Amino acid sequence: MKQTLGVCYYPEQWPEEMWAEDAARMKAAGLTWVRIGEFAWSRMEPKPGDLQLDWLDRAIDVLGSTGLKVILGTPTATPPRWMLDKHPDMLARGENGQLRKFGSRRHYCFSHAGYREECKRIATILGKRYGRSPHIHAWQIDNEYGCHDTAVSYSEHAEAGFRDWLAQRYQSTDALNRAWGNVFWSMEYADFDEIDMPNLTVTEANPAHRLDFQRYSSDQVVAFNKVQTDALRPLTDAPLVHNYMCRILSFDHFKVAADLDIASWDSYPLGYLLDRLGSTEEMKQRYARQGDPDAQPLHHDLYRAVGKGRMWVMEQQPGPVNWASWNPAPLPGMTRLWAWEAFAHGAEVVSYFRWRQAPFGQEQHHAGLLRPDSADAPALHAAKSVSEELEAFGPIETAQAPVVVLFDYDASWIYDIQPQGEDFSYFLLVLDTYRALRRAGLSIDIAPVDGDLSGYNLIMAPGLAVMSDALKARLAAHEGTVIIGPRAAAKTEHGAIPIPLPPSLPGLDVTVALTESVQPGSSRQLTDSGAFIKWAEDLEGRAETVITREDGVPALVRSGGLHYLGGWPDAEGFDRIIRHACTEAGLAYHRLPEGFRLRDTKTHRFGFNYAPEPVTWNGETLQPGDVRWWPLDAQD
Amino acid sequence: MKQTLGVCYYPEQWPEEMWAEDAARMKAAGLTWVRIGEFAWSRMEPKPGDLQLDWLDRAIDVLGSTGLKVILGTPTATPPRWMLDKHPDMLARGENGQLRKFGSRRHYCFSHAGYREECKRIATILGKRYGRSPHIHAWQIDNEYGCHDTAVSYSEHAEAGFRDWLAQRYQSTDALNRAWGNVFWSMEYADFDEIDMPNLTVTEANPAHRLDFQRYSSDQVVAFNKVQTDALRPLTDAPLVHNYMCRILSFDHFKVAADLDIASWDSYPLGYLLDRLGSTEEMKQRYARQGDPDAQPLHHDLYRAVGKGRMWVMEQQPGPVNWASWNPAPLPGMTRLWAWEAFAHGAEVVSYFRWRQAPFGQEQHHAGLLRPDSADAPALHAAKSVSEELEAFGPIETAQAPVVVLFDYDASWIYDIQPQGEDFSYFLLVLDTYRALRRAGLSIDIAPVDGDLSGYNLIMAPGLAVMSDALKARLAAHEGTVIIGPRAAAKTEHGAIPIPLPPSLPGLDVTVALTESVQPGSSRQLTDSGAFIKWAEDLEGRAETVITREDGVPALVRSGGLHYLGGWPDAEGFDRIIRHACTEAGLAYHRLPEGFRLRDTKTHRFGFNYAPEPVTWNGETLQPGDVRWWPLDAQD
Amino acid sequence: MKQTLGVCYYPEQWPEEMWAEDAARMKAAGLTWVRIGEFAWSRMEPKPGDLQLDWLDRAIDVLGSTGLKVILGTPTATPPRWMLDKHPDMLARGENGQLRKFGSRRHYCFSHAGYREECKRIATILGKRYGRSPHIHAWQIDNEYGCHDTAVSYSEHAEAGFRDWLAQRYQSTDALNRAWGNVFWSMEYADFDEIDMPNLTVTEANPAHRLDFQRYSSDQVVAFNKVQTDALRPLTDAPLVHNYMCRILSFDHFKVAADLDIASWDSYPLGYLLDRLGSTEEMKQRYARQGDPDAQPLHHDLYRAVGKGRMWVMEQQPGPVNWASWNPAPLPGMTRLWAWEAFAHGAEVVSYFRWRQAPFGQEQHHAGLLRPDSADAPALHAAKSVSEELEAFGPIETAQAPVVVLFDYDASWIYDIQPQGEDFSYFLLVLDTYRALRRAGLSIDIAPVDGDLSGYNLIMAPGLAVMSDALKARLAAHEGTVIIGPRAAAKTEHGAIPIPLPPSLPGLDVTVALTESVQPGSSRQLTDSGAFIKWAEDLEGRAETVITREDGVPALVRSGGLHYLGGWPDAEGFDRIIRHACTEAGLAYHRLPEGFRLRDTKTHRFGFNYAPEPVTWNGETLQPGDVRWWPLDAQD
Repeated sequence: MKQTLGVCYYPEQWPEEMWAEDAARMKAAGLTWVRIGEFAWSRMEPKPGDLQLDWLDRAIDVLGSTGLKVILGTPTATPPRWMLDKHPDMLARGENGQLRKFGSRRHYCFSHAGYREECKRIATILGKRYGRSPHIHAWQIDNEYGCHDTAVSYSEHAEAGFRDWLAQRYQSTDALNRAWGNVFWSMEYADFDEIDMPNLTVTEANPAHRLDFQRYSSDQVVAFNKVQTDALRPLTDAPLVHNYMCRILSFDHFKVAADLDIASWDSYPLGYLLDRLGSTEEMKQRYARQGDPDAQPLHHDLYRAVGKGRMWVMEQQPGPVNWASWNPAPLPGMTRLWAWEAFAHGAEVVSYFRWRQAPFGQEQHHAGLLRPDSADAPALHAAKSVSEELEAFGPIETAQAPVVVLFDYDASWIYDIQPQGEDFSYFLLVLDTYRALRRAGLSIDIAPVDGDLSGYNLIMAPGLAVMSDALKARLAAHEGTVIIGPRAAAKTEHGAIPIPLPPSLPGLDVTVALTESVQPGSSRQLTDSGAFIKWAEDLEGRAETVITREDGVPALVRSGGLHYLGGWPDAEGFDRIIRHACTEAGLAYHRLPEGFRLRDTKTHRFGFNYAPEPVTWNGETLQPGDVRWWPLDAQD
Repeated sequence: MKQTLGVCYYPEQWPEEMWAEDAARMKAAGLTWVRIGEFAWSRMEPKPGDLQLDWLDRAIDVLGSTGLKVILGTPTATPPRWMLDKHPDMLARGENGQLRKFGSRRHYCFSHAGYREECKRIATILGKRYGRSPHIHAWQIDNEYGCHDTAVSYSEHAEAGFRDWLAQRYQSTDALNRAWGNVFWSMEYADFDEIDMPNLTVTEANPAHRLDFQRYSSDQVVAFNKVQTDALRPLTDAPLVHNYMCRILSFDHFKVAADLDIASWDSYPLGYLLDRLGSTEEMKQRYARQGDPDAQPLHHDLYRAVGKGRMWVMEQQPGPVNWASWNPAPLPGMTRLWAWEAFAHGAEVVSYFRWRQAPFGQEQHHAGLLRPDSADAPALHAAKSVSEELEAFGPIETAQAPVVVLFDYDASWIYDIQPQGEDFSYFLLVLDTYRALRRAGLSIDIAPVDGDLSGYNLIMAPGLAVMSDALKARLAAHEGTVIIGPRAAAKTEHGAIPIPLPPSLPGLDVTVALTESVQPGSSRQLTDSGAFIKWAEDLEGRAETVITREDGVPALVRSGGLHYLGGWPDAEGFDRIIRHACTEAGLAYHRLPEGFRLRDTKTHRFGFNYAPEPVTWNGETLQPGDVRWWPLDAQD
Repeated sequence: MKQTLGVCYYPEQWPEEMWAEDAARMKAAGLTWVRIGEFAWSRMEPKPGDLQLDWLDRAIDVLGSTGLKVILGTPTATPPRWMLDKHPDMLARGENGQLRKFGSRRHYCFSHAGYREECKRIATILGKRYGRSPHIHAWQIDNEYGCHDTAVSYSEHAEAGFRDWLAQRYQSTDALNRAWGNVFWSMEYADFDEIDMPNLTVTEANPAHRLDFQRYSSDQVVAFNKVQTDALRPLTDAPLVHNYMCRILSFDHFKVAADLDIASWDSYPLGYLLDRLGSTEEMKQRYARQGDPDAQPLHHDLYRAVGKGRMWVMEQQPGPVNWASWNPAPLPGMTRLWAWEAFAHGAEVVSYFRWRQAPFGQEQHHAGLLRPDSADAPALHAAKSVSEELEAFGPIETAQAPVVVLFDYDASWIYDIQPQGEDFSYFLLVLDTYRALRRAGLSIDIAPVDGDLSGYNLIMAPGLAVMSDALKARLAAHEGTVIIGPRAAAKTEHGAIPIPLPPSLPGLDVTVALTESVQPGSSRQLTDSGAFIKWAEDLEGRAETVITREDGVPALVRSGGLHYLGGWPDAEGFDRIIRHACTEAGLAYHRLPEGFRLRDTKTHRFGFNYAPEPVTWNGETLQPGDVRWWPLDAQD
């Protein structure tokens, strides 16, 4: 398949007489795809039942007849104002108990049955009208689930739904009381209707209570999405897509994706660096105009897994955005680099957000491919270049990577609920693991805990809170190197500590006898080099020690290829562990220049310079923001 | 006019037998004015309709007959507890939706019609009784509008009023939807009653929505004030005054002032330095006991403009206050310096707050001219010295300054609503501009955007979000040097990006092609010296470049005297720009010692040493806190 | 009396078949006491009136017959879920006005009469059943009053109760208005029912209002506790105990303790260091695994005073806890050191929390003496060692210390309400005083303001906001050295500034003419060495100056042994003052190695090494965490 570019477009925001020229300029810039419609409900249906779709017919026709492929969004992320008159109780409530009012977007509670029906209705109307249109080549369901902390709502509908969900899951309050350990602090219930949501308690609610509410909430996102996919499936053959985001972990993307065909995501490297990745101040300065060298790639790989191999970037940053704490312009070259990095990770489409910068509304400072006055913005030229390069390159084929990192949303919830140290974040543990692999020049896959692990030289499984016996057995039996931990298999499905104590792995005699969180500035030093930060475990057992702490506690132990890691390594410690793993797994370990990264496809090795200074690789010098590729057979 | 001193006094807080001695000591200290009454409603009217004004008659008589001029405050900032029984819904609501309860002060919503009537009633009662009293020489309306974030309320009365205000302004929701760009995110309304206040939305509300709510709220302050001035005007010839504050920008002071005769303000340099000016840690340490060398002067100049030339300091810090994060004692000399700085900026009156330190209540740690035990506090002696110096000096005459800085409340609202970078503050941009001018030894005027600009050698117009065509034309036609920007003319009246793009100035071919906010620690360097911080713009066009960025982007461009500045300069950058401007404008550019400042009146040059170390100027050494003056004809 | 060890145990959390072995292992580890029952209400009474105490009978029997002494807790800190159906309005409200819901613990409002009755009922039931049991050797009433900010509630019951309390205290609103100074800002009331609680006001409420609400709230804790002690007294001869906490100052512990026999407290040194003591970053790093060298001792001494000489540690940290920002493991040796420090300060019992780490619930990461899998945790061995050492040592006899520090909860409330500088904390002022005394090697007593002061060589009285004439007279008449201040006698009983001005001490001619708070980074230097930080006073009067500030203001003045200190000294300043005091008082002043501390009993001097490095004392080297003791007659 040939990779292509696209753009997000809002015909409803511009006079109809501009559409044709816009379409022609898109085409001329080498764009293939155009996403429309996802915020246009108030124009599709200005009053309840008053469908006004002629303009949309014409917009699709103009775009399609110009040769663009249309992605049509269901407009359910922005119910019109009249929807609240029909469903006055459809708004979500925040954790503080307050209504989250109309006036921006995503103002609905996932648990509200009436609103789900409305979404089914509008999806059906759109499906019937456009499902077989030759111009519609994909559908986007809703927009950015979970954005603005909306996956979890504390409304009365959520409460009622949660009680039902618990009743179905546990059948009796006795069972629930046992599962949650409610004997602790006399929290026992005699009736499911006694169970409130876990917000606004005097001190923290029972972690099992919180975990189930999080799981319930995630299930509502899945169900909400499925209402629309069920409506559209019979009406169209075009693929169904949702656009996920960076580090939104509040619902299980794998479960939502089960009802979709493609996983796409919205990639805004500069804002994420500043606000969403827990970046150090040094990182924030060094990569202010390039973005984190590893965070986008991680999400590409994650969403390739979520999409069962099919991944798009639905929104790609084209210039300064509007929503981060600060919004600098990307370094020249970065809009090209980001696109190529995405393609090298298997993106089929990279679609810029947005076509013309809107001069009004909340995002008026968000750059587009055009300026508000319709002049070319810098990214338009970058897009044109990339499209020409793509044309010259031909199809990019994704290969299975030698390394896989397991990823689990449930683990993230469990450790968010009980981090035990303020800076313990499952996501950041995975990111640090991923960074260390990238620093070594490795290409990486990500897989869910029930994913196919065959063929990987190296499996990394950090922080998997709950590990089934089946997963443990698969990892123990894996031919190749496996590194599990820290904090793996540390919880039962109810978020309790399992007995026997973790990790309880077949064939590896190691027990986590004690756990510590370690404050910033403190660490547990490893002998020779590196240290554990944030998290450290006292390991006991007869497993072979590979790396030891200065205080004599084993840090990394193994039996054959199966390893357990007893802490959160700092960068030096991680590099050492990955070096060991590469040796064990027969993988080349590269020492890349700082900020330079590699990624292999089936045929090529791509090199990306995120550093603010030139780097040299393979005898070639890459300027900041530059991308190079070499045939793979000439490498290593 | 001869400048005079005053003091704030609360006869209701002291036994009546102390009044005569207090008055005599005020007189002996050289004080001319005494402000009373502004918090005494519960004593003027202990029960609804039960007027008890005999004590006030006697207090005015004692003070007036001692030779003091009385400023009588309307007591509307502190409605008594019984008012809530009459108007249970008069309380304001905060942005979080919560009622702001009785128990301190300013517990009213500006939109509440019933409370406005009560204010009219009490103002009328006071006006009838004292409007022609020979002792009443001025009236203060209410007290410190906007203090404690009270200008904006989210009550049901505000909501209803806002809807009316919108209906009158836009006439149709179609017009409003167009003006606000509500097509964005399907935010369109079909009825004015559908429009909520812009708080508690899922993510930020439409900036146009927020801007109109802010304008509505400001208009309520204006209307609230006008109710009282309308009541008093027919009853008195004494001037009507309000006491504004430092960096309270939540209502349009120029509009409130249109119904008043004099603008006064409350100057607390030490607390402001710590808590209200975004001061650097270095500034906070260096000027802990002197206050910011430029913030008070800026407010003097601003309120002189607000007062159409008539400005008072209604409350002047006399010692440690109670309300800042920390409350040190002023350096010896500062209470004198602050008074002289005010007079040099045109203050007619400087009135200390307060006479005797109250031993009870919220402000019991706020110093006065007397200690709580009636002994002299240090500031009493400083006041006496100043009054003697004033006597010796004779009238101080204010001259038009060579430089004017334009100031606009609307701009502040627009950039508070969409700062685009966390530290972008219109006020601080103006302050940085003002600082740079002060560092160069210049005297400065401030003017509203519709002010008279004739005769100025240099006009500075930073960050004027909305610039009318008329203003642009006036600036372009101005004979002299004009520096506009950054972020000037960047918005339409609805807070959108104008097309053609900013600044769109007649006679200056420059376009802001792209804007960036720049995080702390980052900058865009200028060639040679200086940098842009916080904010940078990519300028395009054929205007002559005066200063360039290291990356080649023009930083300051011009056509003749008309300049556009494309970023927020750091101190070094600002100094360079002001030096250029002085050369262009034919003004002397001084290199003042750090912390030393000048201010010219019609006849004299005043020098103020805010530095914690001695400075030398004109061959004279000024100790910390010292003030000197020289005849102007011997200068430069 | 021989000192003993104990442990907290939750039989309801474990299968009954484990109880006997648990008891046997406790006994084998040398434990004497076992606390049970305080969170088990849902098991004692699963439905309203359905008492199920057989299991408790058996648990007590198993433990008691193994030779353990049982402390039985009343389970009132965790009312079961059904209690809310009986008393739907029993929940507390936070300062923000929101209900604090069921789902964790301490979900009750102290002002709720119905819940008090329920507590009386369950206490009576337990008292009747177990009051004469040979196994019950003590009772714990409720658990950790005030934890999770629960001492103060803003419920409707609290409001009604507060109004009654005010009516009883003041009899007329006129009296209240005068006492509170309500003439300030027209805050006067005409009826007690007009008085709200002091939360959610526009700006801060009247400090007198806040102070009375705090006092009212404290009184409710006292009354709540007394309901249970009154119920139990006739039914048992065993002592009644409550377990207080670290730096919980929101109710008057002395008043609660008046109805109890023993004061116990819950000592978690590592978490307190990080989260509760305002520790510097340097302290947090240096003592991360040992805890603050002075904070536990201070609480031992405080609670010995609260317990009128009888003090226990009811919960002692045994390993990492779960609730602090970070939760490291104690350095080896610390669980022993903490126990010995407690005994050296007069603890009769040190009881570890908890026996077996719970694998479920909110505290599943809180270590116990056993791991969740019942294996020995490190602290079990430490406990065994301590019990053997105790056996060898014999009874430890507490002696009156040469120094006493006065402590007053009311003072803490007053300065929390009006700190006047952000970092002014009464508690931290006392801690800094205590630290300086400890650094000098002194043993210290703490006493309430009405305590017996006879026989002390040195009395320290920092920050006693309100000082009665009787107390002043006692201190002035004391034979020995007395240091009063800073900020002492600075308030009337209503939290106002007294006239004549503070401190107004008989026989010492000194007046605080002016007070300042001093921001971090600033100070008022003393001549020679040391400085005042945070707080400084201008002292006037003819008292002899002992230490002077560089600006000439007296810093420490005296008349004979009676001193007044006019600021908050830094460590250097404090050392200098304590050195002076020791000389005056005829006490040896030691220069201890950093992190090393001493404590004398009647017969021995104990040395404790909190430092992370070895220290040498008395010719002996103590490793980190080591404890030594020497016969007292061989010392000094």
